[in-house]
Amino acid sequence: MKKAVILVSGGLDSATCLAIAREQGYTCYAISFDYGQRANSELDAARRLVAAMEVEQHLVIPLGMGQLGGSALTDTSLDVPEEEGSPDEIPVTYVPARNTVFLSYALGWAEVLDASAIFIGVNALDYSGYPDCRPDFIGAFERMANLATRAGVEGHAISIEAPLINMSKADIIRCGVDSGVDYGLTVSCYQADGEGRACGRCDSCRLRRKGFVDAGVEDPTRYFQAPH
Amino acid sequence: MKKAVILVSGGLDSATCLAIAREQGYTCYAISFDYGQRANSELDAARRLVAAMEVEQHLVIPLGMGQLGGSALTDTSLDVPEEEGSPDEIPVTYVPARNTVFLSYALGWAEVLDASAIFIGVNALDYSGYPDCRPDFIGAFERMANLATRAGVEGHAISIEAPLINMSKADIIRCGVDSGVDYGLTVSCYQADGEGRACGRCDSCRLRRKGFVDAGVEDPTRYFQAPH
Repeated sequence: MKKAVILVSGGLDSATCLAIAREQGYTCYAISFDYGQRANSELDAARRLVAAMEVEQHLVIPLGMGQLGGSALTDTSLDVPEEEGSPDEIPVTYVPARNTVFLSYALGWAEVLDASAIFIGVNALDYSGYPDCRPDFIGAFERMANLATRAGVEGHAISIEAPLINMSKADIIRCGVDSGVDYGLTVSCYQADGEGRACGRCDSCRLRRKGFVDAGVEDPTRYFQAPH
Repeated sequence: MKKAVILVSGGLDSATCLAIAREQGYTCYAISFDYGQRANSELDAARRLVAAMEVEQHLVIPLGMGQLGGSALTDTSLDVPEEEGSPDEIPVTYVPARNTVFLSYALGWAEVLDASAIFIGVNALDYSGYPDCRPDFIGAFERMANLATRAGVEGHAISIEAPLINMSKADIIRCGVDSGVDYGLTVSCYQADGEGRACGRCDSCRLRRKGFVDAGVEDPTRYFQAPH
């Protein structure tokens, strides 16, 4: 039975990614990270999701990334913007090297499990301008990973799978609905409240809401204020 | 003033690496990791070293790598071997994806600091057969890093410096002695005791001891038993 490690944030994209890995026949090992994100309801959502979607094991790794500073998502002295950013600018919600750190842990676990794939729900179309969501980055990480590990040296390559990378948010939602993902369990908001309700105004909420509209699927998101 | 992030484990190699970065004119930011290593005296050594060597800032990042399992260095149910291993085999002391995880954090911090280099004391000659100590790995990490980050996207490349990579242990020791490194402050042993005294028998001790002999430098290491 082939095994995969799936990065599960508790958001819409990673829930879809987990469903895709399961449909491809992988035994799924979920990994989530507590990196001092403001929205801890994201992690609650991750736990509910993996419970609903039958994974083999779920690790929640505590990271010390708050110490590094530099992002509105981990540094409470910076505000999360509610205006749409410039498409040429990397936004203040970017967490330095976040996907690199996440994938590195997933790589270590994949090696211990003898897993052949790591799934990450990054997306290069409806994305927020983060450099570590681009196809070039995923390819470069995969090449590095196969030089870094015992598995790579012994010829059992590990592949980094980013099945959502060229899908629109609407495509992702349609795909997940077909695979039975309950998006009501997911939280995408950068500043969700303690009950997992979304602001409806941050970049992540705007992209998600537009996705449901474009897909013609009713938005199951709970908001704590009227979304914009 | 150019800045560098230096990975400092508390061992002989990273102490030398820090001295080299300082001599090259970098303002030095040291980063160490608490990854559930058996030898916590390694971290004590790292703290003494950076205090003696005047760094701008020192972060100690707690990692949750023990959860991943699979290494004699983090899993106390596995024994640290005292016999010399086969040169073709990756030893049980290998921590999966360790250098990848370490470099990923260093990359995030480098980005926040706007540092132009990351120094890592890996060595491909007198090394223990770990895949993530090879030049190919370092090159692949550097390429990935410059696709992963805001700095890379904006054209301020980050270089991964591994100045010890082709040096023998004896060369490293001679270089460090010339730069005034006090190797009595460093701990390399995989199973050092609470006072930082070495076993003199594990792979790391054997390589270190041979280095001092080959360099013709008196070994300042404190042992808790007669070394082999």
